[in-house]
Amino acid sequence: MINVGIIGSTGYAGQELVRLLLGHKEVTIQWYGSQSYIDKKYYEVYGNMFQLVEDICQSDNIAELTNNVDVIFTATPQGYLAGLLTEDILSKVKIIDLSADYRIKDVKTYEEWYQIEHKSKSFIGEAVYGLPEINREKIKNARLIANPGCYPTCSTLSIYPLVKEGVIDANSIIIDAKSGTSGAGRGAKINNLYCEVNESIKAYGVTTHRHTPEIEEQLGYACGSNISIIFTPHLVPMNRGILITAYANMIKQMSEDDIKEIYDSYYKEEYFVRVLNSHVCPETRWVKGSNYVDVNYTIDKRTNRIIMMGAMDNLVKGAAGQAVQNMNIMFGFKESEGLLQVPMFP
Amino acid sequence: MINVGIIGSTGYAGQELVRLLLGHKEVTIQWYGSQSYIDKKYYEVYGNMFQLVEDICQSDNIAELTNNVDVIFTATPQGYLAGLLTEDILSKVKIIDLSADYRIKDVKTYEEWYQIEHKSKSFIGEAVYGLPEINREKIKNARLIANPGCYPTCSTLSIYPLVKEGVIDANSIIIDAKSGTSGAGRGAKINNLYCEVNESIKAYGVTTHRHTPEIEEQLGYACGSNISIIFTPHLVPMNRGILITAYANMIKQMSEDDIKEIYDSYYKEEYFVRVLNSHVCPETRWVKGSNYVDVNYTIDKRTNRIIMMGAMDNLVKGAAGQAVQNMNIMFGFKESEGLLQVPMFP
Amino acid sequence: MINVGIIGSTGYAGQELVRLLLGHKEVTIQWYGSQSYIDKKYYEVYGNMFQLVEDICQSDNIAELTNNVDVIFTATPQGYLAGLLTEDILSKVKIIDLSADYRIKDVKTYEEWYQIEHKSKSFIGEAVYGLPEINREKIKNARLIANPGCYPTCSTLSIYPLVKEGVIDANSIIIDAKSGTSGAGRGAKINNLYCEVNESIKAYGVTTHRHTPEIEEQLGYACGSNISIIFTPHLVPMNRGILITAYANMIKQMSEDDIKEIYDSYYKEEYFVRVLNSHVCPETRWVKGSNYVDVNYTIDKRTNRIIMMGAMDNLVKGAAGQAVQNMNIMFGFKESEGLLQVPMFP
Amino acid sequence: MINVGIIGSTGYAGQELVRLLLGHKEVTIQWYGSQSYIDKKYYEVYGNMFQLVEDICQSDNIAELTNNVDVIFTATPQGYLAGLLTEDILSKVKIIDLSADYRIKDVKTYEEWYQIEHKSKSFIGEAVYGLPEINREKIKNARLIANPGCYPTCSTLSIYPLVKEGVIDANSIIIDAKSGTSGAGRGAKINNLYCEVNESIKAYGVTTHRHTPEIEEQLGYACGSNISIIFTPHLVPMNRGILITAYANMIKQMSEDDIKEIYDSYYKEEYFVRVLNSHVCPETRWVKGSNYVDVNYTIDKRTNRIIMMGAMDNLVKGAAGQAVQNMNIMFGFKESEGLLQVPMFP
Repeated sequence: MINVGIIGSTGYAGQELVRLLLGHKEVTIQWYGSQSYIDKKYYEVYGNMFQLVEDICQSDNIAELTNNVDVIFTATPQGYLAGLLTEDILSKVKIIDLSADYRIKDVKTYEEWYQIEHKSKSFIGEAVYGLPEINREKIKNARLIANPGCYPTCSTLSIYPLVKEGVIDANSIIIDAKSGTSGAGRGAKINNLYCEVNESIKAYGVTTHRHTPEIEEQLGYACGSNISIIFTPHLVPMNRGILITAYANMIKQMSEDDIKEIYDSYYKEEYFVRVLNSHVCPETRWVKGSNYVDVNYTIDKRTNRIIMMGAMDNLVKGAAGQAVQNMNIMFGFKESEGLLQVPMFP
Repeated sequence: MINVGIIGSTGYAGQELVRLLLGHKEVTIQWYGSQSYIDKKYYEVYGNMFQLVEDICQSDNIAELTNNVDVIFTATPQGYLAGLLTEDILSKVKIIDLSADYRIKDVKTYEEWYQIEHKSKSFIGEAVYGLPEINREKIKNARLIANPGCYPTCSTLSIYPLVKEGVIDANSIIIDAKSGTSGAGRGAKINNLYCEVNESIKAYGVTTHRHTPEIEEQLGYACGSNISIIFTPHLVPMNRGILITAYANMIKQMSEDDIKEIYDSYYKEEYFVRVLNSHVCPETRWVKGSNYVDVNYTIDKRTNRIIMMGAMDNLVKGAAGQAVQNMNIMFGFKESEGLLQVPMFP
Repeated sequence: MINVGIIGSTGYAGQELVRLLLGHKEVTIQWYGSQSYIDKKYYEVYGNMFQLVEDICQSDNIAELTNNVDVIFTATPQGYLAGLLTEDILSKVKIIDLSADYRIKDVKTYEEWYQIEHKSKSFIGEAVYGLPEINREKIKNARLIANPGCYPTCSTLSIYPLVKEGVIDANSIIIDAKSGTSGAGRGAKINNLYCEVNESIKAYGVTTHRHTPEIEEQLGYACGSNISIIFTPHLVPMNRGILITAYANMIKQMSEDDIKEIYDSYYKEEYFVRVLNSHVCPETRWVKGSNYVDVNYTIDKRTNRIIMMGAMDNLVKGAAGQAVQNMNIMFGFKESEGLLQVPMFP
Repeated sequence: MINVGIIGSTGYAGQELVRLLLGHKEVTIQWYGSQSYIDKKYYEVYGNMFQLVEDICQSDNIAELTNNVDVIFTATPQGYLAGLLTEDILSKVKIIDLSADYRIKDVKTYEEWYQIEHKSKSFIGEAVYGLPEINREKIKNARLIANPGCYPTCSTLSIYPLVKEGVIDANSIIIDAKSGTSGAGRGAKINNLYCEVNESIKAYGVTTHRHTPEIEEQLGYACGSNISIIFTPHLVPMNRGILITAYANMIKQMSEDDIKEIYDSYYKEEYFVRVLNSHVCPETRWVKGSNYVDVNYTIDKRTNRIIMMGAMDNLVKGAAGQAVQNMNIMFGFKESEGLLQVPMFP
């Protein structure tokens, strides 16, 4: 049994962490951090937690927190953790950071895309990018996990095998992504009001979204060179779910069966990645509430390109679920502990 | 470990049973019955079940089924179970019927509201109305459970204590109910198409909805006489959730604190009924995916009436969850086994 | 051709006024008032207006505005107009106030329910409650129109004839109302975020909603006495639309045909009120984008009560459309000018 | 004043035609054709039309219809019109076909993608592809209009200028399209039920959607050669709206201002195409209910590609509105007559 603290527990990702950890057999949540709701009962912020959580929201007393828990999840704005992390903290607790602070190894790239000065560059090197299906071994002994972004998780898992195997030209990759609205967070912004989002779809952050360099870095590792891709996110009128539709030029002639073999060889043993049957398209409704990523592909012979697709719950495998998966690996728990929710439909 | 069969496993309630039972420690699903999808893989009907259920949908071979399982759930159209139930079947397996066939004790009332001739009246007497918060003792030894309707569950649990304690005039009760669209089932009907339901709300079955006599019977038991109420359901553009707003004349002068005491006395020990704090209105988002019913009330001093409210997930506490709860009681499992899902938000 | 100014043109009701007035043959909008977006292009606030409105949002210079237009619409927060209205203004322009400032004749009632001190009580007397189907004659010569609230419009038109004809006991009326989310306005509040509203329904303002005394006053006129009713609004996950389901005790024995005759006698000549055919329930999808109110009813013989229903677009007949209808009457235009939109479905 | 007949008036596109034509000054609808609802009142099929349309749905008596109207709209399944069209019919009435029967000039391509034998090939040659912004002159004298598909309209208008001006490599085009659910029609299919579509997004028809060759043909005209593109549609949980996000390799070095000049030169005089301001992304909410297409683009310097975007209401500019626009041109009416609806938001 370990003790857990959550900084930023009242955002959507933080609340999802609470939902998942309440069902985790090895964990007690000791600290519900929140800047906005200090001293409020947690269930007053999230009514689903009534009679499940009696705790009160705590301010961000990192020193106190560090002495009382085994692992801290930071579901906080960019720059927050970078602004306070010290060797002393890391010597006492493990940290799983759901923000982007330690995801990108090249500080210049980070500072350019995020328009923030990085305040603790020295820890970037040791931080492990927490995508278990690719970095499981490194995660085991990490002190600091950079939990991947939602879009990068779905994109990387859907595309990685074909880049790694040299099937596609990595520089030709175009990712057209669609996300439910919980990805925009719980901030009170007009653009995220019900009437503004409902009955509409739009692209946003075209050519400028911060998840672009994160995806480029991960896929770059796969092909061994720096790459440039297009990544275009869209806002969809639904609560949860990410779908990515990715396009790339094929540089090896392969049949759909050949491709299937590649995906299977990467994911056969991966509980949370489901390679769908031939020509079944991933749909976000089939993964909602679960830690699964559903992936599949279709070859377009007419243009010699391949279309790769992935569907995932942005709050689970795209945030809180993956964070718990990382924790399980770090502490030697069963990797799927607390993450066996059957996708909820409808 | 017991073996379970589901007849009607490919409707929404049947699929929800599968979702819940896959997480139940004492149960193996042996039979996925379906009239519409015989010989299809279950996961081809419900993609969320990919890699979770490898079974194939079975025809309704009740004889074979009876010999192979300990309990049968029937999530079938009205009249189906009544048309085939025999003493032989009941001597071999327990049955939890999610249809209305055995809910109403007065056959005439059943036949009048359902416009169906009841084909096995002899079992109506022994069938137990499976609302554990009220009939727990009887459920323990029942062979045949009439699993309550969605609206009656939410309505009865919200109103029952005040009728039982003589606080309100039962004949003055008006229940204005609102349901998500999964309550309408998975039949291919124009009226349930996305574009027909989305961006609209309507009442339906006004003065004629079949759940009316079911609610009247249960509340009638509470006050010891036959009663007549108004029950008006509405279709809401959302997947899951029922909210009832009920109105009644107060016949005892009581403060809101007095009322609170009554509700608490009935539900303090009930894990799945949450009496909310003063003036917090139930909302369906806080119970989604869980077996909770949230109830509360407000006294309107100006008119000497009370407004009672209840929120619930129609597929869980309103159908599959309650069925599992009944099964747990019947087989001596922990009552909450398989039902501890934290409500999923957003 | 008259000139029009809108104060509060960047709220949802204000924008709907712009949509309707752009299609009105006798009107030019001269003033797009907005406190929040001064000096911004109107189309930057509402992208639908791109290439339709080139104007810039203006501050609230009431003096300048008064000299330049024939009529002012105020789609402003409670208390705003009351705080600045003068005889000088009213001597120069007509005002149609979409706020509640002049709707309630009894100042005490207003101040009690709105918790605001009324700053210009002297104009309450002359203000005309702008429900054309009831007050058409008075509207013709009014200088100041109190444009009815959304719920009161739908409720009053659905219930008024039966109160007026003594068919129902006005003090037994219970109105269970359901509204789309645009009724909550465009303010940046967490409670109105997409993920908070979507997939949920709740009651709010139970026993305390400010539209209660407004409805009571109007129905009180119909029966000639002060009445107390219950009014319970609910928030529905859709953009537009109000549905009210109202219940009352019948005090005259009448058949459904008799009731039909009464409704027809009140509304046969009313273009914007549609009395539906027997047992057809109003649905908000059939009135979306239009100025129609659809009304109907069902008698419940078992309880000797009647259920009255009304559906309407809250932003049209419930706000901007009714305001335009009032303007048309005041200026001698055809009453339906600019209001002939066919309801948009789906 | 001309007389109009609609075959297939009870589908979503047919109903939208009715909505638009009811507001058209030069037109009387004489014939509400429907195979499914013969002898039913039209308003019983679409409640919004209550008190607006008293007509009864007619069977498809093409001979009688031909003698009574000036123009026929066919909003019918593929192959229907091709199966009955004759020179006699075309000598008496003009036809605007909303199906795909005459859109594709190469019969082989049609028969391959639609898996239907074309029954009246002789008329394919004379049929004019009814995209007014490109084919206005030809439309004027046409007897038979092939009204473009929804996706092809949005795609072609968004991309055409850059292909025509040789800015992009037409064979590199990838169109990632997103559509509201009304595009799937009013058929009673499980896949289009509310609970199946709501809270989900998926791609469908990947590499096989029938609109692919239609777009290829139109863009092929622009560059003067046969081209192959990728077109991937997605189903979005909303009623109306299409958004396309298109990607292509730039083959001319141009600045964003240069591109702007090209778009402006094509669309400055086009009332229904709005080229948005710099870096404003099209959103379907801003065009809902109107005949507008909003287009824009962003250059991605990192990859030397351009991202083109277009938003449109699939039922208006994507079907019924464009059909009316074509009719206006054919009969010499003002091109925007009946089509000046301001986009309805929210």
